[in-house]
This record gives sequence, structure tokens and C-alpha cells, in this order.
Amino acid sequence: MKASIINIGDELLIGQVVNTNATYMSRALTMSGIAVVEVCTIGDSSEAIEASVHRCLEQSDLVLMTGGLGPTKDDITKETLCRMFGSELYENAEALANIERIFAQRGFPMTETNRRQAWVPRCCEMINNDLGTAPCMWFNATTPTHPNIQTSKSPKALVSLPGVPFEMEYLIDKKILPLVRERFQLGSIVCKNLLVQGIGESFLSDRLEAVEASLPPHIKLAYLPQAGMIKLRITATSDTASDVLQNEVKIVSEKIRSAAGEFIVGEDHECLAEVVASLMREKRLTLSAAESCTGGQIAAQLTVLAGASEYFKGGIVSYCNEVKADIVGVEQSTLDRHSAVSEATVREMAEGARYRMKSDYAVATTGVAGPTGGSDLNPVGTVWMAVATPEQTVTKKMRYNGRRQQVIDRAVNEVFAMLIREVSGQ
Amino acid sequence: MKASIINIGDELLIGQVVNTNATYMSRALTMSGIAVVEVCTIGDSSEAIEASVHRCLEQSDLVLMTGGLGPTKDDITKETLCRMFGSELYENAEALANIERIFAQRGFPMTETNRRQAWVPRCCEMINNDLGTAPCMWFNATTPTHPNIQTSKSPKALVSLPGVPFEMEYLIDKKILPLVRERFQLGSIVCKNLLVQGIGESFLSDRLEAVEASLPPHIKLAYLPQAGMIKLRITATSDTASDVLQNEVKIVSEKIRSAAGEFIVGEDHECLAEVVASLMREKRLTLSAAESCTGGQIAAQLTVLAGASEYFKGGIVSYCNEVKADIVGVEQSTLDRHSAVSEATVREMAEGARYRMKSDYAVATTGVAGPTGGSDLNPVGTVWMAVATPEQTVTKKMRYNGRRQQVIDRAVNEVFAMLIREVSGQ
Repeated sequence: MKASIINIGDELLIGQVVNTNATYMSRALTMSGIAVVEVCTIGDSSEAIEASVHRCLEQSDLVLMTGGLGPTKDDITKETLCRMFGSELYENAEALANIERIFAQRGFPMTETNRRQAWVPRCCEMINNDLGTAPCMWFNATTPTHPNIQTSKSPKALVSLPGVPFEMEYLIDKKILPLVRERFQLGSIVCKNLLVQGIGESFLSDRLEAVEASLPPHIKLAYLPQAGMIKLRITATSDTASDVLQNEVKIVSEKIRSAAGEFIVGEDHECLAEVVASLMREKRLTLSAAESCTGGQIAAQLTVLAGASEYFKGGIVSYCNEVKADIVGVEQSTLDRHSAVSEATVREMAEGARYRMKSDYAVATTGVAGPTGGSDLNPVGTVWMAVATPEQTVTKKMRYNGRRQQVIDRAVNEVFAMLIREVSGQ
Repeated sequence: MKASIINIGDELLIGQVVNTNATYMSRALTMSGIAVVEVCTIGDSSEAIEASVHRCLEQSDLVLMTGGLGPTKDDITKETLCRMFGSELYENAEALANIERIFAQRGFPMTETNRRQAWVPRCCEMINNDLGTAPCMWFNATTPTHPNIQTSKSPKALVSLPGVPFEMEYLIDKKILPLVRERFQLGSIVCKNLLVQGIGESFLSDRLEAVEASLPPHIKLAYLPQAGMIKLRITATSDTASDVLQNEVKIVSEKIRSAAGEFIVGEDHECLAEVVASLMREKRLTLSAAESCTGGQIAAQLTVLAGASEYFKGGIVSYCNEVKADIVGVEQSTLDRHSAVSEATVREMAEGARYRMKSDYAVATTGVAGPTGGSDLNPVGTVWMAVATPEQTVTKKMRYNGRRQQVIDRAVNEVFAMLIREVSGQ
């Protein structure tokens, strides 16, 4: 089954707002076994709405659209759909009651403008939006009562949802997807992520040539390059039950492991910070960090994940030599003799963090993120990394190109990968 | 002038990746006075690419597309465009030299697969991608040599860019937009940002009612709510010179200042970290941080900006009481008596950071970011913040709702705003 998504809103077209609604809806549909074929973002224009609705209904069985349902003049979705479906607006009692309830709750008086939000096209099925004043609308797009909609004879549906993220998310999860499962014949989709680090995309694809050649058409392998790593995504789709797919995907991932296993540092995770978190918690280990050029990114990426306090004791961002010496415990003589960007310094940073914050493991970075500050010895992009373990301290030097942000992101993933390899004994 | 954006990638359609490229490109085009009429996200399918390229070229003068330029099998953009333009692929010497340079730098050997990235359609203008191996391609979409492209006779262009964000951003800013300005007739656009903190959107709009009513049609005021703050953007557009606009925008921003000046914490900056950076450097002051619930975000947001080492001495992420006591210098008795989330603790954290890292100013945060860990005294979303100055230490308690990431982001902006007000003596 195919679906298209239409997001309406000028704020999206001028780049004021990141379209996270599209991401949420795409993921929800995909996880329900529905293949999203297009996400289309357009402005608050009835011509644009008409054109994209017609196109999307042609190419898919289900069209979900958000936006343009507010009470103000620039919200024209309802009128446009009403005209397209050759219908008329009427005041829906349930929608009105819902709006009255919400205003009573907020203790605001209700205006005529608010009341008008209860008007919906007669031809649609009003789906009550318990969290907001804009009703959700389900249109059966192939019944003969809708002369203006020309599509194939197979059942198709168009659903108009409010663009407010938490209202949309609630309606998708609690009302729309259940209805879709009830009214459409859904296939299944199984996805699996492998996080690969330490090999370039082209070398990886050479390694996986045989695996890729052996893939049946319903299983796809995608390379998603990220800062200093690659997320490999296996996607299997079918019209039948997903347990068969689960097994097929498992076999493919095993083939990939045997072809490039030494570079796989994570499975079924979205990012390396998640891998670090689950490893540390599973093995009941603690971690600390001493960061120079990564400037707190290591700590920030770990602590943004819920439950970080179970294993992460703390970090020191030693952005000047004084702090490296006084707080982290790097010997002044080491800084004088080897400079701040050196193996000796990064080693003492990791060991100092581990000792002073009393953690089982510690990671450290020091380098030149740029754009300035480079030297012949340490050009911009040079980063030293270290992992201190209960047994030893391992170090590594990298030379990245790219801008400041990329140098930082790559260094963070590199040191996460070093840590993962140490802890999992790879 | 109208533009459309096409983002190619299955990872976008399954909702694995948020389409931030679209936001960046939309903003860049809008800021250049180009109206974006559609953003279209499709999968790695040549049928989908052909259909959307045709449609977007019909409805706009410029089409920017990203994705599908990698070296692997699922990257089919180049072949598809080549077929559409009735052209053939050839090895571009400049692109090849660029790829060889990048591999030499990385110290990796170059494979045939890599070399193949230097192949581009003869009919396009290769635009060198200094930051990556996938070349950027400019197609003049209306010259007769492209039989397969049917569009109006006015000059139109199709530009294919790599989907890797930092490569795309670099190419848009440094190469594509300059070419567009040179080859198309653009109007002028002047924008100005005002960063507003400490007042809600609706209260701000009440304050600015008169200002908004007085705006001429070619000047727009946009409210961009961000974590715990609002970015007010004034945008003036015209077909004539921009110096007139500059002055008009200046007058509007002065009106806004006189209506809500006490809440304006930044001007002509994109974020509060930039405001902090310019204040600190301008006044030759130094800063340090002690972070608990913000987990390194303060340090990370400051150090991602080039030149942070001029004023930022360092930060301590004290994610457990041990580190708060041993490294930051909070009295154990304070932690025992008042708990980690308290005014007494955040005060000692800021003063400890300032003293131990020998900085002029220091900021500190401690709180419950959630989703768990809340108590009756300190429910989830409770955050204590402090700024230690040479004269005094100011503290503030906030209670945020929203998810973990939002609580962290709001706390960071709140403490940045506190610091800005202290340093600028507002």
C-alpha cells in the first residue's frame, strides 16, 4: 500500500520551521507497513493544494495532509477540499461541543471565529481532535459522490489533519492509523540499522558487493553516511506477515557481518551515543570525559539520552591549558614539552578524567577544529583521541577535512567507536 | 522568481532522517529574494525523479535537488538526469582531480567506484565540490540541446547537489547562490533578527500590535519561537536597491525596541550563544560553566562557534554529586542539606566554576530534565540556574514542561539570557 504526505504552510517554504511533522508521519506510516512515496510541502494556496491532492491521490492509496485548518483567513484547506469534493460546509455538533469544552477548560470566551472551526464538509467523516479546536477530516476519495476527484476505482482515502505537532501525533497514533488498519489491507515492513565506522562508503560497498547482488527485490540496502561513520539500513517489504521478513533481514545482516563485521560498531541503534549508553548500562560500567576540541559535544550527546546519569559521571571541557592542568590533571611539563595537541596530552587527559571522576572508563579529545589555529605540526583538522580503560589507555590521531562542526562531529563518533571497541572487546 | 526543491532519499521517506536540508535551502533561497513554491521529497527511483523534475521545472525558474549522488548502487540521480537531458556521462578532469586530492588527504587508496564519481553528463556545467567527492551539476534546462526537457522559453536552471548537509550548505552559499545572482534577475531583500527572551509570543504580539499595523506591505515581521525565546525576523523585499530597505528595516527595529526593548537580548545574531560570544570578546571577558542537567550543551553551543577559545576557559559537566563536590567544589554539606537541585547548590556550582577555572564570569545549571527523576519538591522540568559575576551571583528557578530535549534547550537559552543581561548591564 502506498501513501503520500502533503504539508501545507508558508512557514515551511521560507525555511522558518523544520518539517518534523513529515518525519513523524513518514515513520508512523512506514512502521505500519505503508510505503511513503512522496512528501510534498506547499504554501497556503488553493491552486497548490488542488494540484498536489490530485497528484498524490493518483499515485497513492492514502493521502495524509496537515495544515491550513486554523481559524484565520490564510487557512483555506477546508474550503478548498469542500470545493474539490463538490460538497458544502456544515456545523458539526460533535466538533462544536469539543471546541466549547476546550474553551471552557482554558477559561477563555469563545468567538465566532472559533465557532467556525466546527464547520466541516458534509461529505467527510469528522474525526474529533480531543487536543485542539481544528477537527480532523477523513474523505473517501473514490465514492461517486465526489465528482471532482478522479482516481482509480480501488478504495482511496484523503485525511486532513491539523499541523500542530502534538495534535497531529495524537490523531495519527490514536485515531487515523487504527482506522487505516481497519479499512485497508496492509503489508509489512521490517527495517534494521547497522552502524559502521572506520571504513569509507565506497570501500564498504566493495566489501558488500556480493551481499547486495544476492538481495531479492523486496529487500533494499541503503548507505546513510554520517559524520565519520555510515548507517547501513536494511529494509524488507512484503504483503504478508512480518515474521518471515524478520528472518530474511536477520540473514542479510549476518551476511553483512561476515563481510565487514570488524567495522560494525552498532546494531539496532540510531547513533553511537545510544550504543555507548546501552553497553555501559548493560555491563554496569561508568564513564567520564575530558574534552578539548569537541567542546562538550561528547557529554551533550550522551546526556541528551534519558538515563545517562546511570553511567555517566561527568565531563570536563578543558578549553585552555590552565584547565587541562588544574582541573583534568595534565602535567604542566607535558603541555610545555608536547603542546596541548599531542598524544602525551590526550593520554593524560583521559587518565586524569578517569582518576579524578572515579569512573571505569574515560574518553578524551584534543585537536584543532579550525578554521584557524593550525600549525605545520598540527594543521586544522588534527585531532588526538584517547580511551582510558581499567587495563590500558589507547590513543589515536586523525586528520579531518571539512569545517569546524564536521571536525567536531567526526571526532566525537571516532572516540565513541574507540570506546565501543574497547568495552565490547572487539 | 520562483524555485522548487527536490530532496531525494528513501531515508527521508521512511522518517529516519529529518529533512533539515530543505529548511536550509528554503531559507537561503528566501533570503536571496527567491520564492520557494514547493519542497518535494521522493525516493531513489528514476520514475519519481523524472516526474518531479518535469513538474518542478514547469512551475519554477530554478530547481535545486539534493541526493542520489553517492558512489553506491542506490544512487541513480546522475544516470536519470543524463537520460532526461539526452546526454552522456564523461569523466570530468577537474572533478577527478578533486576526488584524488580528497583521498590523498585522507590517506585512503582510491577505488574504481570512487573514480566513477568524477563522471558527469556532458550537457551540464560541473561545479566543483571542494568538501566532498560528489560533484555538483548545473543544467540549463531550456536550451534546445535537451530534447527531453519541455519547459517555457525563459531561462531555467536545474542544479543537482550532494545531500550531505555540510557539502550542500557550502555549495549553496559559496557557489550556487552567487551563480544564481549572476544569471537571474533577483530583487533585493533585507532581513534583521531580534532575539527576544522572557516574554510569551502572544504577549509580545500585543506589545507590537501598533508596529505591525504600521508596516508597509513589502515589510514582514515573523515570530520564530525557539526553545524559551523568540526570534523576531524583519524581512523587507523590493525590486530595487537595498540601501532604501536597510533604512526602512532599521526604523522598524527601533520601533520594536521602544515597544519591547527590555526583552531584546540580541540583534543581528542567529542564536544567544553568538550574542554571548560577541559580548565576551568585545569586553575582553572570560567565561566558564558548571553544568548538571544541561549536560554539556552550554559548552558545546559556545565552542561550536569559531574563536571560542578567546573567551571560554572551560566547563565541568557534574553529572553526579561526587563530581559536583570533588571537581566543581560544591560543599558536601550543601548537597546533603539542600540536595543537588537547589539554589544553594547552583550558586556554589557557578562560584566554584568561576573560582577554579579563574574566569571573570561563570554560569551553572542543575535540574531534572526528565522523563523520570522528579519529586514533589523538584518535579520533572525544574531547573535552577546561576550566573556568577565579579560582583555577585544571581540565581533563577524555572519549571519547564515539554520533553527532555526541550527542557535542556530552554535552560541553556535562559542562562545565556541571564548572562547577557548581567554582562551588558541591562
